[in-house]
Amino acid sequence: MSDELTVGEALPKGFLWGAVRAGIKASGNPDLAAALIQGSAQAAAMFTSNQVVAAPVTVGRRHMAATGGRVGAVLVNAGNANCATGQAGIDACERTCVAAAEAFECIFDEVFPSSTGIIGVPFPADKVVAALPVLKASLGETALHAESFARAIMTTDTRLKVAQATVVIDGVETRIFGAAKGAGMIHPRLGAPVAPHATMLVYLFTDIAAMGDDLRGLLPQAVEGSFNSISIDGDTSTNDTVLLLASGASGVQLNQRSREPFAAALAEVCSRLAYAIVDDGEGVTHVVTLHITGARSEFEATQIARSIAHSPLCKTAWSSADPNWGRLMAAAGYSGVEFDPALVAVKIGGLSVYEAGMRSPAFDEAATHKMMQQHDYTISMDFGLGKAQCKFVTCDLTAEYVRINADYST
Amino acid sequence: MSDELTVGEALPKGFLWGAVRAGIKASGNPDLAAALIQGSAQAAAMFTSNQVVAAPVTVGRRHMAATGGRVGAVLVNAGNANCATGQAGIDACERTCVAAAEAFECIFDEVFPSSTGIIGVPFPADKVVAALPVLKASLGETALHAESFARAIMTTDTRLKVAQATVVIDGVETRIFGAAKGAGMIHPRLGAPVAPHATMLVYLFTDIAAMGDDLRGLLPQAVEGSFNSISIDGDTSTNDTVLLLASGASGVQLNQRSREPFAAALAEVCSRLAYAIVDDGEGVTHVVTLHITGARSEFEATQIARSIAHSPLCKTAWSSADPNWGRLMAAAGYSGVEFDPALVAVKIGGLSVYEAGMRSPAFDEAATHKMMQQHDYTISMDFGLGKAQCKFVTCDLTAEYVRINADYST
Repeated sequence: MSDELTVGEALPKGFLWGAVRAGIKASGNPDLAAALIQGSAQAAAMFTSNQVVAAPVTVGRRHMAATGGRVGAVLVNAGNANCATGQAGIDACERTCVAAAEAFECIFDEVFPSSTGIIGVPFPADKVVAALPVLKASLGETALHAESFARAIMTTDTRLKVAQATVVIDGVETRIFGAAKGAGMIHPRLGAPVAPHATMLVYLFTDIAAMGDDLRGLLPQAVEGSFNSISIDGDTSTNDTVLLLASGASGVQLNQRSREPFAAALAEVCSRLAYAIVDDGEGVTHVVTLHITGARSEFEATQIARSIAHSPLCKTAWSSADPNWGRLMAAAGYSGVEFDPALVAVKIGGLSVYEAGMRSPAFDEAATHKMMQQHDYTISMDFGLGKAQCKFVTCDLTAEYVRINADYST
Repeated sequence: MSDELTVGEALPKGFLWGAVRAGIKASGNPDLAAALIQGSAQAAAMFTSNQVVAAPVTVGRRHMAATGGRVGAVLVNAGNANCATGQAGIDACERTCVAAAEAFECIFDEVFPSSTGIIGVPFPADKVVAALPVLKASLGETALHAESFARAIMTTDTRLKVAQATVVIDGVETRIFGAAKGAGMIHPRLGAPVAPHATMLVYLFTDIAAMGDDLRGLLPQAVEGSFNSISIDGDTSTNDTVLLLASGASGVQLNQRSREPFAAALAEVCSRLAYAIVDDGEGVTHVVTLHITGARSEFEATQIARSIAHSPLCKTAWSSADPNWGRLMAAAGYSGVEFDPALVAVKIGGLSVYEAGMRSPAFDEAATHKMMQQHDYTISMDFGLGKAQCKFVTCDLTAEYVRINADYST
């Protein structure tokens, strides 16, 4: 179990964050958060590829299209996903955007809405609207303000998920702050229209100055190796959203010179948030990184990794530190990727368990079992087919996951 | 929970069944079974589509190809899957076939081998060979003999899985007897080369007289609507095998006149066995039939059903009788099938829960919750896209499933 993350003072300029109790969460915890951009930010967004999407995803897409990717304010609630709520849900979402635009003095369709929480329950727009004056009063630019934003969007999350990076270009700093939530229904597949529901929400704030097109070019790369390369339960939510906002307040331009270091920092922030999401997954006791190598293509490598990451038999074996490579091979075998089992070599935490079509002569069951009792480790599988590879972060399946999700009704 | 099934006396003629304790199962229970055909039978076999296959699947495929589909004896062991055992496993399997051919006085490649049990452990061919004389002495044609066959192939199964049917053609009876095993790693996808591992084994014995080609025409149809339409955990085994054997001893010919009633009886036997497999699934407390209608094609209907059947969030909700239609819609939404959520209508046990893009006005949470406390029920989802449909049988995911499969080491 990792230590609780905290927010440091090195935050990007040009943003204000805040949060309040709007009375949407049954717990009474803060459940409505906002980020306000001084002026407005260039933005890039990626949404769930689920066919069934929540109202804020529909509205968010419309707003991004209408503004060409400008965002003046982000408005996020936890406690109600505003999903499967029909036209009434869309109307309710738009009503909160209109009210937020008035409160924050920005343009209606520059408000970017998100929701996470229970699905199918009418959205309490009145509570959101009523809370806006206090929300506005809560805004500020310090680490405490940023943390209040990150904390209010949590649902079944047990820990804050934040990450920061600073890039220095010609002696000038530009910063990235990322905040995420998500602990179940986690198998984001962002991109082409498709969508899920315990939901991952990710907000990436930076003060670099960039054109929307450049941000839209950078974000998919960072998302592919991070949020699109994790799975807790294989359930892709209806609300998953990743939003990248660039205020420009650092004065650093995104150009030929800064692109590479900035892209690397963005990828690192995304990877740390993605790992934190799996690490805080519902009932998770082991975080397992699948390192698939020797594949014909990255696509096939990921296909194998997903098959293993979604196999209940692999996941239950990890929960008891069982070095059951047979289940790994079986799950790879039904992934749809063609390979020769005799060419595959499998290592768990660096210890050889399978090669040349059978149990490795070096297989040491006790040592491997002991290694798998660690909180996190890597399973490496080389398929001997080519040079492509992927890393995919997933976790075990425990009785506690079942207990949490069987809890009638979440 | 269904009552224990038993074997009736109306068995197909031309077969002898038997079983012994060969010392392969740790429990000491009978673990080696045989079926001997008087003369030899025309046969059709379907194997797992997993890329990783057990030695007996490789050998069985070779034998069926070599003989053009004739089988003289079936030899099945439980306790060791002979999978991921390399060339040594194939050699061991062939050695047992040679010894069985000698003992049963048939041709080497007319012996059809199957194995189920632990994976990756060297196959104890010596134990199998040593047990053959006693196995031969155990053979007989009564219901008790047939039951001993069905019981010996069980692994984590808690109940016998058998089904029988009699078809009368022009006053003459022809019979079908089916025996199956399987309780975990159940998501058979038989057909095109692909394979899994707690394994489903199914043996269908009939005394109709048929050509191999006719049997190979009939079997896929019966399998598609039964074994290929169930899932316990979405894990497709490395050993799954369905074998149909026709002794011809009834004198009834498979022809234009008998084909339809025989095919219907075969499909019924397969469906009953498939249902029994899910009903006895590891940790299962609810059997759920997904009835997908209004799809553009049967393929798409099945794609939606599989997505729901493999969703841990849907399956955990069923375990607590939670009428969480949001999870159903989300899983349908990431199935890859295009549809409009506003056209979908969902009923659980006949009770309307979702329609027109939102919670049904008729939704009665308490009544639906109560209905879902039954052991089995149907979830109907109409997609309003076309006329295709499917029925898919699956089950809930419980902490008991996790406990069974986390049990180090199975």
